Amino acid sequence: MIDRISILGTGLLGTSVGLALRASGFRGSITGWNRSPQHAELAKQMGAIDSIASDPMEAARASQVVLLSVPIYATLDFMEKLAPILGPEHLVTDVGSTKRIISEAGAGLYNTPERAAFLPGHPMAGKERGGAELGDANLFRGAVWLFTDDPAANRSPHAAALVKAWRELVTAMGSKTLDLDPARHDELVAWVSHLPQFLATALSALLEEEVGDAPELKDVGGRALREMTRLGASPFSMWRDIAHTNTEAVEAALAALEQRIAHLRENLRTPELRDEFEQANRFRRE
Amino acid sequence: MIDRISILGTGLLGTSVGLALRASGFRGSITGWNRSPQHAELAKQMGAIDSIASDPMEAARASQVVLLSVPIYATLDFMEKLAPILGPEHLVTDVGSTKRIISEAGAGLYNTPERAAFLPGHPMAGKERGGAELGDANLFRGAVWLFTDDPAANRSPHAAALVKAWRELVTAMGSKTLDLDPARHDELVAWVSHLPQFLATALSALLEEEVGDAPELKDVGGRALREMTRLGASPFSMWRDIAHTNTEAVEAALAALEQRIAHLRENLRTPELRDEFEQANRFRRE
Repeated sequence: MIDRISILGTGLLGTSVGLALRASGFRGSITGWNRSPQHAELAKQMGAIDSIASDPMEAARASQVVLLSVPIYATLDFMEKLAPILGPEHLVTDVGSTKRIISEAGAGLYNTPERAAFLPGHPMAGKERGGAELGDANLFRGAVWLFTDDPAANRSPHAAALVKAWRELVTAMGSKTLDLDPARHDELVAWVSHLPQFLATALSALLEEEVGDAPELKDVGGRALREMTRLGASPFSMWRDIAHTNTEAVEAALAALEQRIAHLRENLRTPELRDEFEQANRFRRE
Repeated sequence: MIDRISILGTGLLGTSVGLALRASGFRGSITGWNRSPQHAELAKQMGAIDSIASDPMEAARASQVVLLSVPIYATLDFMEKLAPILGPEHLVTDVGSTKRIISEAGAGLYNTPERAAFLPGHPMAGKERGGAELGDANLFRGAVWLFTDDPAANRSPHAAALVKAWRELVTAMGSKTLDLDPARHDELVAWVSHLPQFLATALSALLEEEVGDAPELKDVGGRALREMTRLGASPFSMWRDIAHTNTEAVEAALAALEQRIAHLRENLRTPELRDEFEQANRFRRE
């Protein structure tokens, strides 16, 4: 049923979606737009998109499904600009890492019988560096693609059918879908995604200060150190919007971790240390 | 020059050393001992050792090089028991993760012309789980093998030659050797090895409490979460001795990290966040 998709933002995620759609057998047209044209050009060369749009608004109007794959505040901007010019023949969906603010905007601007459908989405996949050049047809294989759809959505039958068809494409790209309430989503990802990221950033920044002047010493840490600091390479440009739109949940998770580390530090020589290791072992049990 | 090695402790490291020696072309005899005999049996079945010793003291006496691959306090016990029964025809070396206490014991008990040589060693390689069954001939390939040898050692020419020959075997196993002062070693590994481990333990223990009752939610975190908590599976039995013998350096590193996380938490919405990401990016620059 879907045969015209536009991807607004051909960075790592947008480019990967284009490649994954093609790899899954999608035969419709895929138009791409990117703020910096050379990344759109690269996505086209890689086969992620068929054509480059010069105007994202026109590209959205000419497609059935509009994928917003830009940072969160840019997603909100697009949502506002697109809502009045699209109709029930369209579905807008996104890949933003926080969902409360985006879902609220979606409920206010979309999902009436006269307007386009909006489906808030969040694939739990990425890399520590961005850019079209890292686009990967297998990025979503085995990943969980979260949705925080609005149960009060009052859509036209056509718009509802587009939502169903997009979910099927997500499954075809290799992801398992999971539906969550937007507030629960933001709380959950604060623990399992944002906490690990901000922690890796703090650890990497600290180690740069402590051992950064002796690069050969980084080798000493081996695989464990490489893994624990890999996310230290993540770009501020993406994480700034996440920090701004999920502040309270991230603050709570970081504060809880500080307490947990302090507890461990105070018990390096007490039997309490065994309990902490056993509790950690339970998290990693098969 | 070395053709008789005994490995006291055929867990992950001891078994891997036996396998790596064979893979590198070592043709001498390798005798193994382990506190639980089934792990010695397994190491033998895997080809890491040729024969199982029933008495570790006798095995040590009959070999030229004695590798102690047991936890730190067990290493110190062996060092005390072996010193009086070995002579300058022997080299004792170890794989313990902290080196100040072991190096001090070595200086007091070994390295005179009448006694065996002792070479404190620490291969920066391991896995989050232990046991002979995970033994791996390639474990040391590309890793750094640290030594904290005593510059005041007054060895017989034969003992000095054994030290040199063991270093060559370590290189043959694929490791790069690096020499450090014992106190500097313990401080350095507190940052690049012990801090990542205790951090992963604290993070895993916290997440077990927060999301452990909903196992399907662990999938949501994807690769980033798996990497940041992999070390959560590490066994208390090994890390207890590290916590006990490098307490001050680990306390200092953990306290510094707590402050760094708090700083980041207090700046989720300020321009300071950019500085933290850029500092972290520098640690991961190629």
